Amino acid sequence: MRSPPQNPHDLSRHDLQDILKTIHAEVRERFDAQKGKVADYIPALASVPRDTFGMAVATLDGDVYTVGEAHAPFSIQSISKVHTLTLALDKAGDDLWKRVGREPSGDPFNSLIQLEHEAGIPRNPFINAGAIVVADVILSHYDDPEAALLQFMRERTGNPDIGRDDEIWESERKSGYRNVALANFIRSFGNIKNDVQAVLDFYYFQCALKMNCIDLARSLQFLSDRGKCPSSGAQVTSIERAKRINAVMMTCGTYDAAGEFAFHVGLPAKSGVGGGIVAVVPHVLNLCVWSPALDEKGNSLLGGYALHRFTRMTGLSVF
Amino acid sequence: MRSPPQNPHDLSRHDLQDILKTIHAEVRERFDAQKGKVADYIPALASVPRDTFGMAVATLDGDVYTVGEAHAPFSIQSISKVHTLTLALDKAGDDLWKRVGREPSGDPFNSLIQLEHEAGIPRNPFINAGAIVVADVILSHYDDPEAALLQFMRERTGNPDIGRDDEIWESERKSGYRNVALANFIRSFGNIKNDVQAVLDFYYFQCALKMNCIDLARSLQFLSDRGKCPSSGAQVTSIERAKRINAVMMTCGTYDAAGEFAFHVGLPAKSGVGGGIVAVVPHVLNLCVWSPALDEKGNSLLGGYALHRFTRMTGLSVF
Amino acid sequence: MRSPPQNPHDLSRHDLQDILKTIHAEVRERFDAQKGKVADYIPALASVPRDTFGMAVATLDGDVYTVGEAHAPFSIQSISKVHTLTLALDKAGDDLWKRVGREPSGDPFNSLIQLEHEAGIPRNPFINAGAIVVADVILSHYDDPEAALLQFMRERTGNPDIGRDDEIWESERKSGYRNVALANFIRSFGNIKNDVQAVLDFYYFQCALKMNCIDLARSLQFLSDRGKCPSSGAQVTSIERAKRINAVMMTCGTYDAAGEFAFHVGLPAKSGVGGGIVAVVPHVLNLCVWSPALDEKGNSLLGGYALHRFTRMTGLSVF
Amino acid sequence: MRSPPQNPHDLSRHDLQDILKTIHAEVRERFDAQKGKVADYIPALASVPRDTFGMAVATLDGDVYTVGEAHAPFSIQSISKVHTLTLALDKAGDDLWKRVGREPSGDPFNSLIQLEHEAGIPRNPFINAGAIVVADVILSHYDDPEAALLQFMRERTGNPDIGRDDEIWESERKSGYRNVALANFIRSFGNIKNDVQAVLDFYYFQCALKMNCIDLARSLQFLSDRGKCPSSGAQVTSIERAKRINAVMMTCGTYDAAGEFAFHVGLPAKSGVGGGIVAVVPHVLNLCVWSPALDEKGNSLLGGYALHRFTRMTGLSVF
Repeated sequence: MRSPPQNPHDLSRHDLQDILKTIHAEVRERFDAQKGKVADYIPALASVPRDTFGMAVATLDGDVYTVGEAHAPFSIQSISKVHTLTLALDKAGDDLWKRVGREPSGDPFNSLIQLEHEAGIPRNPFINAGAIVVADVILSHYDDPEAALLQFMRERTGNPDIGRDDEIWESERKSGYRNVALANFIRSFGNIKNDVQAVLDFYYFQCALKMNCIDLARSLQFLSDRGKCPSSGAQVTSIERAKRINAVMMTCGTYDAAGEFAFHVGLPAKSGVGGGIVAVVPHVLNLCVWSPALDEKGNSLLGGYALHRFTRMTGLSVF
Repeated sequence: MRSPPQNPHDLSRHDLQDILKTIHAEVRERFDAQKGKVADYIPALASVPRDTFGMAVATLDGDVYTVGEAHAPFSIQSISKVHTLTLALDKAGDDLWKRVGREPSGDPFNSLIQLEHEAGIPRNPFINAGAIVVADVILSHYDDPEAALLQFMRERTGNPDIGRDDEIWESERKSGYRNVALANFIRSFGNIKNDVQAVLDFYYFQCALKMNCIDLARSLQFLSDRGKCPSSGAQVTSIERAKRINAVMMTCGTYDAAGEFAFHVGLPAKSGVGGGIVAVVPHVLNLCVWSPALDEKGNSLLGGYALHRFTRMTGLSVF
Repeated sequence: MRSPPQNPHDLSRHDLQDILKTIHAEVRERFDAQKGKVADYIPALASVPRDTFGMAVATLDGDVYTVGEAHAPFSIQSISKVHTLTLALDKAGDDLWKRVGREPSGDPFNSLIQLEHEAGIPRNPFINAGAIVVADVILSHYDDPEAALLQFMRERTGNPDIGRDDEIWESERKSGYRNVALANFIRSFGNIKNDVQAVLDFYYFQCALKMNCIDLARSLQFLSDRGKCPSSGAQVTSIERAKRINAVMMTCGTYDAAGEFAFHVGLPAKSGVGGGIVAVVPHVLNLCVWSPALDEKGNSLLGGYALHRFTRMTGLSVF
Repeated sequence: MRSPPQNPHDLSRHDLQDILKTIHAEVRERFDAQKGKVADYIPALASVPRDTFGMAVATLDGDVYTVGEAHAPFSIQSISKVHTLTLALDKAGDDLWKRVGREPSGDPFNSLIQLEHEAGIPRNPFINAGAIVVADVILSHYDDPEAALLQFMRERTGNPDIGRDDEIWESERKSGYRNVALANFIRSFGNIKNDVQAVLDFYYFQCALKMNCIDLARSLQFLSDRGKCPSSGAQVTSIERAKRINAVMMTCGTYDAAGEFAFHVGLPAKSGVGGGIVAVVPHVLNLCVWSPALDEKGNSLLGGYALHRFTRMTGLSVF
């Protein structure tokens, strides 16, 4: 039975760096015309220059390739939902899936409609409602959830300096009326067990973490390497679970644009309103792009473009 | 850069046949307990014994493995939506995507709700509404749409006997009030250009085709082999388009259970209410399972189980 | 126990005519600024000059007061839904309410959404879906439904010339894709018993009737006079049923603007996209206004204004 | 022009008392078979015996008729929304209607769906979301909102003992996750101006007031007497505004059963989950019924029956 190469274009180290440079040049040409909007619901996010771009590739061989602002930390926001899902599954196991679904939402990312129809069970762990339930699970299982998440991030990346952006954390806490609404609504169905404010505080904490493109690409290498983290050598999760987290990223990782992403990019990916997107090429490498201007679905506009170009030029895609 | 094997368990020809036998045995044990319901909206579908099971694997090396009723033709129903999408893209190109979206529907498979919200643009080509628009595109581009589709099926499979089940075609024509409603609703938005009844007649035709598991597995081999059909040698579609059709199958191929399928099976797949499901392992092989009892989302219950077991035992998955 | 006058301003015959003249003058001043849009989905409706206005009041004492184009016949459209509801209740009795509800729709007037949620039971008899079910009931009970409706209209008004506008009937038949969708969708739930096309043909017939303001005001006098028709002397329906039809008009008679109408006008009323609105002042009189430019909810803009002014100046209101 | 009696059956004082007795007897016969459910989301409501029934009629002549538990105070819950609407309109005038609509909701009474569709503008002031906005308006205009509401209630009824049920207030505060969700969701759209918790505390206060049937009937007599309160002699609101509040009660006063209520009862009415319903017969009298078992829409089951029988036997109805 045939076993074709996952590296279909037979890419060398040199090729990869060239591809990133080409993408960077293309992206810069698009800065002026980009119509996206930097998230402005809190000042700390709005202040990031819209013409920022960074990209990092971390192969399972241990190589790292970068262009642009790949070393500048930014607010990871919803990308953290992949990490907390992993932490929650580690403790709660598949029982977690009784409290949160695995289907695309088909609705804007902070919609309350679906919750009402489905009695407080969020459609998937990557919409805000689902991530808040995951945060509640973490609070039930970890004595110090913030420390546990920080440790997870630091071990995955080998970077001990990862931490919270205090200004963003404060702003989100103050202005997060919709998240307060979501959490209380879920609580009214009994699907939050801990104190609502404590759950939200942890949720704001995870969103307010600052990491750079290299950190983020590395932080999810266990998802391309059958559950094993190359940085720490730890078996972070099982082979099966790593595949399944990738599956959830593929169908639910980019708000209600998962179909478009699968079509144009063809990789499991998770985006955040800070403008970051991470993607997984199983068995081969991980990527992270960052560009703060968002499309109307909340995904980085030039980040999406860069991922599309990368898979086109490298031939890497799960399909 | 690493290029890991797509055949991770280093499967031999012998192993594959054993795996199919094991799955067949497991499925038979589950016949009595299965809660699914055979589609009964038309008599010809309802008459298929609920304990039927067939499965075929067709590798890109040209080998075929089967168990159970893999040689018995059945009603392919919505699986035909993959073939008509391919035919329509061949003529209309990417303009097709102006008339039909690529996002999971998040709603039951014949819902009218989304159409109203999105002004007559169906969410994707694999819900009924989307397939009806695709049928309309085919009517605009082919002189004899039925002949074109038949020829496509026969060339992909090498089987000249594929044809329409007259009884099913008649029944669907007579009882298809919802499809009449859908088509007229879309027409009211201007997104059907041909005579509504002619569009529906072609749509009923494609659903009423009868094929067996081997035919169906073969018919989509161009999707695992970079657009090339091993049976006829033809380049059916471009590499890029083949990947993209796989992506649409992954996110939209199993009604509103695409998230569950990605999670449990991890392969692009398309199901039909006749109980068939086809799946694609890019670069390696194609599968088709058939078992008529359906879960509440309209997908074959034991078919889904068989696919799940297959990917678990072989380690084959895009993730 | 107190029995206050229903005619709180002690209006005389002279006063009423003056009030109509004042309203006419006010309406004419508003012609230039009106933002409404004449229904243009069929040419015959679109051709009515947008500055048309007519109004008629028919008291239970037998007096009639008019201004403007009160003698010009126009397309009554959905106003006919009150007459067909009366005819259907006469034959089917309260069993009718098993097939159609009595709640405001809360949705645009030809929405399919609610039908899906409520399994083919339209929310009320005054949305298109509900009127189509009522038409189906009439087809089941009358040998010649069109003749029965014509006779009803002629007896209520004393006008033997009432008939169908052939051009409008033809146009609606040709372009009514949404109504075809609605009817087939309801049929798929089993809530239409007769041939779908025959039901629609009767529905288009009732919408295509032409009547003037005086006819329309008179045609519903049985609703203000305890079920009795002053023109023919017939007891058209029971006291209780007359009250209840008024109640349905109050809560459902003006598409999804029933709350606004109750608030600003305070009378049971039914509108049509031809620009007509009839209203009932129980025990006292009936009105009809006509002005073709519609607001975004489908109700006559200046017609609504005229009714508001009339109830304000006369003090007549059910509240 | 005719001025027919509002008291169509020429009812005497004696008749009215007899009618109440008859209704009481009919209701008692229905106690065993009633399928409704006493509100049980807080213990203090759940503890009310389900076979409780009280009814009071207060005519504009100053007479009061009662049966059953008409003197026993109960939790008025959402009935208070009529009083707070009146207070808010008094200060904010018609500007209030920019922040809350006047259309029936068409959805269950604490739905969040509509709010999302209409950007934080609740459909009407009688659903929870609307009443929370009204509460916010009151907080903006009154120095001591609780004192103002208490004074309003005491002056309307002549009963200085009306006050809050502390246990209910505490319970609602503790378990009101849905209301916290609603208020924060509205706040996220900017349609709440004061501190969310302060708004909710006032909202819980108004719901936790205890009044008996006589108090409640009297408290809304200004709505049947052209804005004038017979108890205090005060002109509480204008004639026009009194009519309009009646109109809003007619179309929105009984959650999403307003159509049914208009059909079966034919009077402006407002219900609460404590089992009370008040109704207005313009120019003639006011009623209040109380029976705690609720139908699936949240309205008192036997209360609705009693009102239906009352209007049937007296012939009183706005239609």
